[in-house]
Amino acid sequence: MMQNFPLRVGGILDHAARYHPNRPVLGRSVEGPIVESTWAGVQREAKQVAAGLKALGIKKGDVIGVMAWNTVRHLCVWYGIPGAGAVNHTLNPRLFADQLVYIVNHAEDRFIMVDPDLLPIFEALMPRLPNVEKIIVLTNRDTMPETGLEVISYDELINGQPDDQPWEDGDENEPCGICYTSGTTGNPKGVVYTHRSNVLHALTAAAPDMVNLSSNDRIMPVVPLFHANGWSIAYCAPLAGASMVMPGRDMSAPGLYEMLEMGVTYTAAVPTIWLGMLQHLEANKLGLSTLKRVLIGGASCPRAVIEAFQNNYGVQVLHAWGMTEMSPLGTICSFKPEVNAIPPEERLDVQETVGHPPYSVDLKIVNDLGESLPWDGTTQGRLMAKGAAVVQRYLKAEEDAVDSEGWFDTGDVATMDENGYVRITDRSKDVIKSGGEWISSIEMENTAVAHPEVLEAAAVAVPHPKWDERPVLAIVPVDGKSPDPADIMSLLEKRFAKWQLPDDIFMVEDLPHTATGKVSKLELRQRLKDQGYTLPE
Amino acid sequence: MMQNFPLRVGGILDHAARYHPNRPVLGRSVEGPIVESTWAGVQREAKQVAAGLKALGIKKGDVIGVMAWNTVRHLCVWYGIPGAGAVNHTLNPRLFADQLVYIVNHAEDRFIMVDPDLLPIFEALMPRLPNVEKIIVLTNRDTMPETGLEVISYDELINGQPDDQPWEDGDENEPCGICYTSGTTGNPKGVVYTHRSNVLHALTAAAPDMVNLSSNDRIMPVVPLFHANGWSIAYCAPLAGASMVMPGRDMSAPGLYEMLEMGVTYTAAVPTIWLGMLQHLEANKLGLSTLKRVLIGGASCPRAVIEAFQNNYGVQVLHAWGMTEMSPLGTICSFKPEVNAIPPEERLDVQETVGHPPYSVDLKIVNDLGESLPWDGTTQGRLMAKGAAVVQRYLKAEEDAVDSEGWFDTGDVATMDENGYVRITDRSKDVIKSGGEWISSIEMENTAVAHPEVLEAAAVAVPHPKWDERPVLAIVPVDGKSPDPADIMSLLEKRFAKWQLPDDIFMVEDLPHTATGKVSKLELRQRLKDQGYTLPE
Repeated sequence: MMQNFPLRVGGILDHAARYHPNRPVLGRSVEGPIVESTWAGVQREAKQVAAGLKALGIKKGDVIGVMAWNTVRHLCVWYGIPGAGAVNHTLNPRLFADQLVYIVNHAEDRFIMVDPDLLPIFEALMPRLPNVEKIIVLTNRDTMPETGLEVISYDELINGQPDDQPWEDGDENEPCGICYTSGTTGNPKGVVYTHRSNVLHALTAAAPDMVNLSSNDRIMPVVPLFHANGWSIAYCAPLAGASMVMPGRDMSAPGLYEMLEMGVTYTAAVPTIWLGMLQHLEANKLGLSTLKRVLIGGASCPRAVIEAFQNNYGVQVLHAWGMTEMSPLGTICSFKPEVNAIPPEERLDVQETVGHPPYSVDLKIVNDLGESLPWDGTTQGRLMAKGAAVVQRYLKAEEDAVDSEGWFDTGDVATMDENGYVRITDRSKDVIKSGGEWISSIEMENTAVAHPEVLEAAAVAVPHPKWDERPVLAIVPVDGKSPDPADIMSLLEKRFAKWQLPDDIFMVEDLPHTATGKVSKLELRQRLKDQGYTLPE
Repeated sequence: MMQNFPLRVGGILDHAARYHPNRPVLGRSVEGPIVESTWAGVQREAKQVAAGLKALGIKKGDVIGVMAWNTVRHLCVWYGIPGAGAVNHTLNPRLFADQLVYIVNHAEDRFIMVDPDLLPIFEALMPRLPNVEKIIVLTNRDTMPETGLEVISYDELINGQPDDQPWEDGDENEPCGICYTSGTTGNPKGVVYTHRSNVLHALTAAAPDMVNLSSNDRIMPVVPLFHANGWSIAYCAPLAGASMVMPGRDMSAPGLYEMLEMGVTYTAAVPTIWLGMLQHLEANKLGLSTLKRVLIGGASCPRAVIEAFQNNYGVQVLHAWGMTEMSPLGTICSFKPEVNAIPPEERLDVQETVGHPPYSVDLKIVNDLGESLPWDGTTQGRLMAKGAAVVQRYLKAEEDAVDSEGWFDTGDVATMDENGYVRITDRSKDVIKSGGEWISSIEMENTAVAHPEVLEAAAVAVPHPKWDERPVLAIVPVDGKSPDPADIMSLLEKRFAKWQLPDDIFMVEDLPHTATGKVSKLELRQRLKDQGYTLPE
């Protein structure tokens, strides 16, 4: 009745190349210089990548591991791999060696494509990666690093390859990408994105009340493409015909600032990046001349960051929440009419929530018995998700990752209000339960970080004979400062009931982090235990 | 790997009811009073409609004909029918009796749902509709009109039915709706929309550079739901969580103005509606207090209408083009960066194009040999389309409606520029070809209508011994006015080469129209022939 139109990611790039051919796609290369391309240019080069991979024997369904920074070349690889019918397995260079070995072997990566500065990682690991047949270094032959490995360069891959062949076609439910979650326990688990799930995710994420990307935007993803599907920005941008700036590997505040000033209107990163950027702007009395919006996710965004962007720089903050398992968008905090109707100063409270889901994502909160809890803005429950781009089963898993009714347990604890705004209050594994009641560690940490001398904070549960657990707060001070715990307690007293306040606030030199930069509460609790920590009387 | 999430239209309404439960859905009822509902309310009532239809024996795949104005109740029916697994066949009350009989029988409508004032149409036709088992009148028993037909009322359909049962589920490629095209020759042809095509269409149409609907909008579709899938607004609005105002059956300018002033920010209709509205506003010195944007399609929009909305009322015009066969969106004229870069006064020229397609629609222009023509903004060719919501085969047709490469011939003649902006210059059937060159009848008509004393204009070809064809221009003057043909010719001289100018400009009392309100050039040419019209020397 209607035409057959498989939802394949190549079609997104085709749309951009055909209807936004000259839209700039810019970026810093790993070799240093700024590269200037367009959507038509990216499409042509991606077609060469696809043809080059096929010439090297890549067949439909083969998996290719990619460890690369956010560059224009990475975009060409991002589309070239699925364009050859293969599967793009993103590799995080910060993973521990054992984890990398596990996931490359588990996903059965046939080829590795790697930025030249990251090649040493594979020099160390190759003896443990028996399935990897070939390493392609994402630089040209004349900038190739010295290596004992047998490798080919990017120009050897694409030179002489046609730039106008159709993408490998197939069913929309074929795999397109793999991203592993770095669980704090057990082996990493592979999430397999399909062509369909990626296209539907980009379509729903790009909506006006979500990421709201237009062809008049120039977006810079600071979030790496290897983090949680790169927050889908490499799909959303060409879908909208938006211009892009790829920042390269320099994640320093001065480096990113230089890239932001290349006409970027929209950017996206985890909160810690913005803490550093805001300090850099203030210290050097710099402004943001074109930036209008910033998408913040990956961890709860402190109120101080939202206020600084909006009040000092006129940049709108969109607080978001997602997971690798959700492709990754779960919610975005845009303002529905109910929020626009309240006084501007109260809207900041709403911006501490992570907002509401796009079409195709459904959410609920449940108690320990799995019963749905009310959306009253105060009742906390385990956050469960369903959707077109939510995992059903991890790669090679024997069981589904969802319950009998198809709900995926996000591992987060949250409240929801009557308009579906979600406030993440905790991770279910990190929950502090005192006297039978939950205490939000995230809210405690965000409040503490608002203190100008606090760099980072972590609230964890310590066993207590009467209350079962009591919260304590570990603080990493800003370099050279020693904040007064009493001042921090005063801040907390404004937002917490007395019984919810931490029993102790103490300074630490650093906090343990996971490979994706989150504080490992598990390890912090272990550290306290190892140190023989006891609650003050 | 990823969850199974069939794209069914019921899921759109579920999203609105769950995440925008209290968003107002308002409208004038056919009985007269204003009705106030919400997305949660519409969902509950639509579930009752679905349950009521199933209780009356409706099974998956059954077709139900619906002849109704744009009301809140029609929205409940719009979702209730596919919610029962049935197919919503929209019926245009302005179709000729023979056409109605043909399409109701051809689509095998089992039930008819009809607004009370339109019931007389079926009183006349029922003896010729052997498949119709039941007529449901969309009013309550106490406002039911006298009728000799055996009918049931809307309250009898839904009263006592549960409002919380799941929608009938099934494959996303199952049929959801049918709309017939009223071809100027031959029998009407049925376009069958699937659940998937409607959802994908709404997702792509709602994008920021397309319809750009947000939950902060209140949209009033003046375009009837029975015209070309109601321009998809009944899907786009709940998808975005937007508020709606349904205008009812009063299409007069004062009637629509009253509804616009109910907080409407966005509206959509054919140009003729807006010609009347603009006259009404001017004559009565009225303003538009909340309206921000107007989507204009269904026929080429005169420049004068665009200028009046934008310059006099601060309302942005989005000129659009589509077809019943395209669900219906083909293009929308929003501004890409290339357009924002030119001086504001020149952007008005761009707004006379119908803009560029959404993701999932692909277009090309071809010559009579089917060869692709350049996108240079001047070369005219037959406009061909492909897409996820473009017809493959008409209902019960024996052959596909597309060529061997899958392209659908839109019947329009157009130019395209390098950014994909489409300018419709003619209908291929209405084309004026003089001395081997095409002359744009649409541009000629729009230029003539810019004259304040011209109400409507139609350019048609008249046979010519030397040039094959020559254009003449028929003018319907504004009531009581007699515009000077020389003045109209002066306007045309500014935009047309000398050889393109009409050989004659003459006044007529009216123009022949098709059932959907378009000028029938076929009939106009026939009229001229019947009158023995000859070109002036």
